[in-house]
Amino acid sequence: MPAITRLDSGPRMSQAVIHNGIVYLAGQVGNPGEDVAQQTRTALSEVDRLLALAGTDKTRILSAQVWLADVTTVAQMNAVWDAWVPQGHTPARATGESKLVAPDYLVEVIVTAALP
Amino acid sequence: MPAITRLDSGPRMSQAVIHNGIVYLAGQVGNPGEDVAQQTRTALSEVDRLLALAGTDKTRILSAQVWLADVTTVAQMNAVWDAWVPQGHTPARATGESKLVAPDYLVEVIVTAALP
Amino acid sequence: MPAITRLDSGPRMSQAVIHNGIVYLAGQVGNPGEDVAQQTRTALSEVDRLLALAGTDKTRILSAQVWLADVTTVAQMNAVWDAWVPQGHTPARATGESKLVAPDYLVEVIVTAALP
Repeated sequence: MPAITRLDSGPRMSQAVIHNGIVYLAGQVGNPGEDVAQQTRTALSEVDRLLALAGTDKTRILSAQVWLADVTTVAQMNAVWDAWVPQGHTPARATGESKLVAPDYLVEVIVTAALP
Repeated sequence: MPAITRLDSGPRMSQAVIHNGIVYLAGQVGNPGEDVAQQTRTALSEVDRLLALAGTDKTRILSAQVWLADVTTVAQMNAVWDAWVPQGHTPARATGESKLVAPDYLVEVIVTAALP
Repeated sequence: MPAITRLDSGPRMSQAVIHNGIVYLAGQVGNPGEDVAQQTRTALSEVDRLLALAGTDKTRILSAQVWLADVTTVAQMNAVWDAWVPQGHTPARATGESKLVAPDYLVEVIVTAALP
């Protein structure tokens, strides 16, 4: 029975869950008031922080979903993504429009990564 | 070659698929005519039923997505979720708006869990 | 440390990522100008091609998400899906509405499958 380790665990969700060599991250968002590019930067920073907490990093991301409150902002998100994603280690990704839990949130990034 | 076991398997989809110690659930919904809180209760009941069928339970959920037909109903969904999710065992979660396959469906819950 | 293998890997994403006996596919879409049935056929063809590249096939799909730009087209998508999905091997599936990265894209299919 492989153990389950929950990180930054709250009463509603955990920000990261580790099981059998994989870490599953909760959807990461930016800060209200930031534009979509800056929210993407903030969300990806949180991804980096949680991956580090789990003992891995962005070179080991397996899959990602990107949800945009307004999909016509995809180019702004992609510009930040493209500067962040490690070349030679790009994950499988899907991107679509989904309004988020508060109208101030413009982007949410959901990541699954392998541990080393 | 780890076996794949499919539960409640129909011609379009299976409600649960087990492989290598993980169970992947199909999106679970409530009943048309119920409000979003009651549909959340029904969907989470189905999650419980399918996890039991797979030999596990809600303390071993790794990740979840919650899709709301109208994301402004998130508080009603969360009230039901918060009463249901086992403290100390909360999964990674992402929540967004997605209209569902019939206008009567207000919420869909997608869960991945570990077997014991 | 299980290796990660990335297939059809570009600077933004990889079309398939293999790790520990699982292949994660990027969201597959059809061609602009096609109707939703034909875009579904094209996307599922790409799924077949990527699964073959990974050394597996559609009888070993674990889970799928289907995102429709207009969820009222679900019946057209399902007709193509039902003809394609192998009986006795249907995956866990969730279907919802999500506008896609260009208005010409009508459907996106996201698949996770087991290797043999």
